[in-house]
Order: sequence, then structure tokens, then C-alpha cells
Amino acid sequence: MNILLVHAHPEPRSLNGSLKDFAVSRLKGAGHSVQVSDLYAMQWKASLDADDSTQRRPGARFDPSLDSKHAFENGCQSEDIAREQEKLLWADAVILQFPLWWYSMPAILKGWVDRVYAYGFAYGVGEHSDNRWGDRFGEGTLAGKRAMLIVTTGGWESHYGPRGINGPIDDILFPIQHGILFYPGFEVLPPFMVYRTGRTDEDRFAGICDALGQRLDTLFTAEPIPFRPQNAGDYEIPALTLRSDILPGQTGLAVHVADRGEENLPQLHAGQLAA
Amino acid sequence: MNILLVHAHPEPRSLNGSLKDFAVSRLKGAGHSVQVSDLYAMQWKASLDADDSTQRRPGARFDPSLDSKHAFENGCQSEDIAREQEKLLWADAVILQFPLWWYSMPAILKGWVDRVYAYGFAYGVGEHSDNRWGDRFGEGTLAGKRAMLIVTTGGWESHYGPRGINGPIDDILFPIQHGILFYPGFEVLPPFMVYRTGRTDEDRFAGICDALGQRLDTLFTAEPIPFRPQNAGDYEIPALTLRSDILPGQTGLAVHVADRGEENLPQLHAGQLAA
Repeated sequence: MNILLVHAHPEPRSLNGSLKDFAVSRLKGAGHSVQVSDLYAMQWKASLDADDSTQRRPGARFDPSLDSKHAFENGCQSEDIAREQEKLLWADAVILQFPLWWYSMPAILKGWVDRVYAYGFAYGVGEHSDNRWGDRFGEGTLAGKRAMLIVTTGGWESHYGPRGINGPIDDILFPIQHGILFYPGFEVLPPFMVYRTGRTDEDRFAGICDALGQRLDTLFTAEPIPFRPQNAGDYEIPALTLRSDILPGQTGLAVHVADRGEENLPQLHAGQLAA
Repeated sequence: MNILLVHAHPEPRSLNGSLKDFAVSRLKGAGHSVQVSDLYAMQWKASLDADDSTQRRPGARFDPSLDSKHAFENGCQSEDIAREQEKLLWADAVILQFPLWWYSMPAILKGWVDRVYAYGFAYGVGEHSDNRWGDRFGEGTLAGKRAMLIVTTGGWESHYGPRGINGPIDDILFPIQHGILFYPGFEVLPPFMVYRTGRTDEDRFAGICDALGQRLDTLFTAEPIPFRPQNAGDYEIPALTLRSDILPGQTGLAVHVADRGEENLPQLHAGQLAA
């Protein structure tokens, strides 16, 4: 299978650099084709701006969405963006691997999302009306592919637990796992977390690699997080609120994950996928 | 009072640009001193890397945290970082103003956080032991100041409601409001949200400015979000889990906001602030 690993750390001789090397080696050893977007090595431009389109009217007002739409439709995106989109289309699975800086992605990786996730590619896909709010959250250009995060942090696991001060890790990662990966159609696997990175000696690193290796071995067989597809009946359109009969009275991020015990997990119908 | 407004939009002739102009004008009209960090105009470098320190041993392994600590302590941070830190120290209130891109900050603004929030400035402040996990979450270098987000999004308010598909806006913004603003000590005001930006004509813009104006007029008097301070007794140290007798059995992001109806809202004792 084809795997794209997007890596965001400035130092090859870091824990993140070593995890990346291990992951690539493990995946290639398993027979997969692997491409790595090492954003710092590529000197990835993080800031989305008017130069992301190679054809613009001088002095024209820059609209991040409309300019992206025009560039994508007309094949005039800057080359670095188009190359990353080709890698995403080529990939069967995508791994985003990064240190958690201030509870989110390093800016260079956020900039990869901001610029590569163009209008018509990652959003603004499919029919958009009061009956159907686009192909997204379980549908879209990247449907049928799998994604996983590999995230390191200095904090302890308890700090990111159900009552930990940082907030539960699944809630902290929700904007990424649900909003960035599930949104254009990926099935999202549970994240691989490395906590308390300040305490990583050779023994611990070996243990981390064992555990990561098992996750990589099961990349195409593990159960994804059962996020609810938007267009499979669980949400009212166009308010996009969860139907009142589902988990009545409950609020928050967890309601968007279907309980594996629920009857009739939402399934997209073949007709909807073909739309 | 002194107000720093950090602005992250590439186009001055945008809704965000207009909101920024309005806010600056309103605040100055009220007699405040205002500085604006217009990140795109400044061509802010988003990616944290070894060039953020002006003194490095050639070929030395780059450690984002330790290099930041060394540069901050020894006054050899790159000039752009030091200037922003001076603005933060000067400010009595800080406004972060941005379009919500993929449920988080534009990369250029995340890069302002990544690079400006140095070790010894925004984190790694105060005693760090099994009894006290640093001066953070309600304490720290920026304690005594106020912060507020002004955020625009194309999505509807219902999409970001308690059962909206994007997740409740307070949960989506938690990594920023709690993890980036409350962390170094700001009191955080509720965010000013502009939803459904695609439908903004002159009348609507006037209404938005009225509402924003009222929020700006009350910048120094409005009630902040009652996030729980870390070191005021609500959390076990060092596990950093909420004490079991507080909101027993409840989990998630909301437990870190004190219920205004609770008796004995956590207060930092004078002795703790002086530590």
C-alpha cells in the first residue's frame, strides 16, 4: 500500500526524527511504498497568501477561499501545493507526525493543512444546499483512505486524561482528528501518543518503537474512531445539529463519536457515495 | 490602558481587515494606547527553528525547548521574538484576531505563539516539582493581563453549538483560550465570534461593529471565563487531575471551568502569587 508520512520537526537528531526514521523503516519493511514530506527539510512555506496562485490580477483583493478555488480549478496553484495534493491522492494512508506545541500542530504543519487543503480539494466538495451540506465528515476527496496521528508531548498521560488539566487528549486532538482528517473523508485511527518525552532513554525508546511498530503493522486493519458521517442521517441539515433522538440531552465533542454499542451505526448508502 | 492586537489575515480589504480597523479606532477613541502586530504585513516568520537564537554552536543539535531557554535567558533571541515579548509585557490586554482556518489559528498566528512563547517567558516559569507544577494556568509572566479572541468563520452558529457537528465553539477554542492564553496567566474573556461570514453585507457589518464595540468598551470590566487555576487547590499535584470531590465523575473540557454557582471559587492566595 502507499503511505504518506508528513513530518514536522526541525531537528533530524530528535525523538521525532528518530520516530520518523523508525516508522519509515517499519512500513517499508512490511512492503509498503512510503513517501515522506519532511516539512522543515522542504522549507515548507507555512503562510497561506496570494503567492499560492501563480495567476492573479495585480492589485486584486485576495480572498483565501475564492483564490484557492480558482487556482485549484484552473491548475494554477503553486507547485508545492499541487505536489502535496498528488501525494495525498496517491496515498492509501496518511500519517501526520509532530510534537504537540501549545496543544496543537507546529505552525509549519498547520501551514501544510492551510495551503494544501484547497477549495475544491478538501472543502467545497459536493452538493451544497439546504439538503446536503457538501461531501464532508466521512465523505470527500480523501474518502477510502486512512489517517493516523503520531504525537509527542512533554506532559504526562494523566495531564491529558479524562480529568487532567490539559483536557482529555481526544478532545484536544478533536479539531485535528475530526476537523482536519475526518472532514475530507479519511477514516481516522486512534492517535499514537508519546507522553513525558523528557524521560526518554534508550530502553524507553525501544519500548515506544515496539508499541508504534504494532500500530503500524495494523494500519489497514485497526478499527477507526467511529465519528458520525454528516450525511448518513444523524444530523439535521442544514443546522448540522445532532438529531434530538440520538444521545438525547448530551452535548460536547463526544456526541460526534458513535457508541460502538449503538444499534444501526450510521452507514453511508451506496447511492450517497456515488453522488 | 495598553492594548496589543495581534492580527492574522493576508488581505487588508477583508472582513478581518475591516474588523481590525474598527477595533483599533474604537479602542483609541476610548483613550487607550494600541499596538497592532499585523503578522502578514510584518512578514512574520511562522516556523520555529534554530535561527530563533542568534548564538548557536554550529552543527549543534537543535532542541526547541532548551535552545529557547538559553536564548531567552541570555538575551540572544532573534529580534522579532524579543520585540513581541516586549509588546506583551507592555500590554494590559491582548486581542488575538483571526479567521478560523480548519478549526484553529492560521499558521502564521500559530507561529507567533510557537516562537514568542519562549521557555522562561510563557512556560518553564516558577517552581517545578512534585508539589508545584510551575506558574501556569492562572499564574505566570502574563498574570494580571486580560485576553480576548475575535474569530470569524464561514460556518453557522448552530454548526458550533452544543450539538453542532463542528463541536461546541468553546470546546474548539479550548486549546487556545485555556492552553495558550490562561496558561501564561491571562484572564480570558469570552470570544467575540462572527459566524456565517459569507453573508456579510453593509447592514450586517454595522451590526457586527455595534456588538464588537460593546465588547471592546467592557474589555476591562467584563467577567472572564472562570477557568480553574492550577495551583489554587483544585488539582492534585503532580498528576494534575481535578480533585475527585469536585464535579465527581464528570470528565471533559468543561470541568476546568468553575461553576459560578460553586461555593468558594478557587482564589490564589497572596502567598502563592508572591512565590
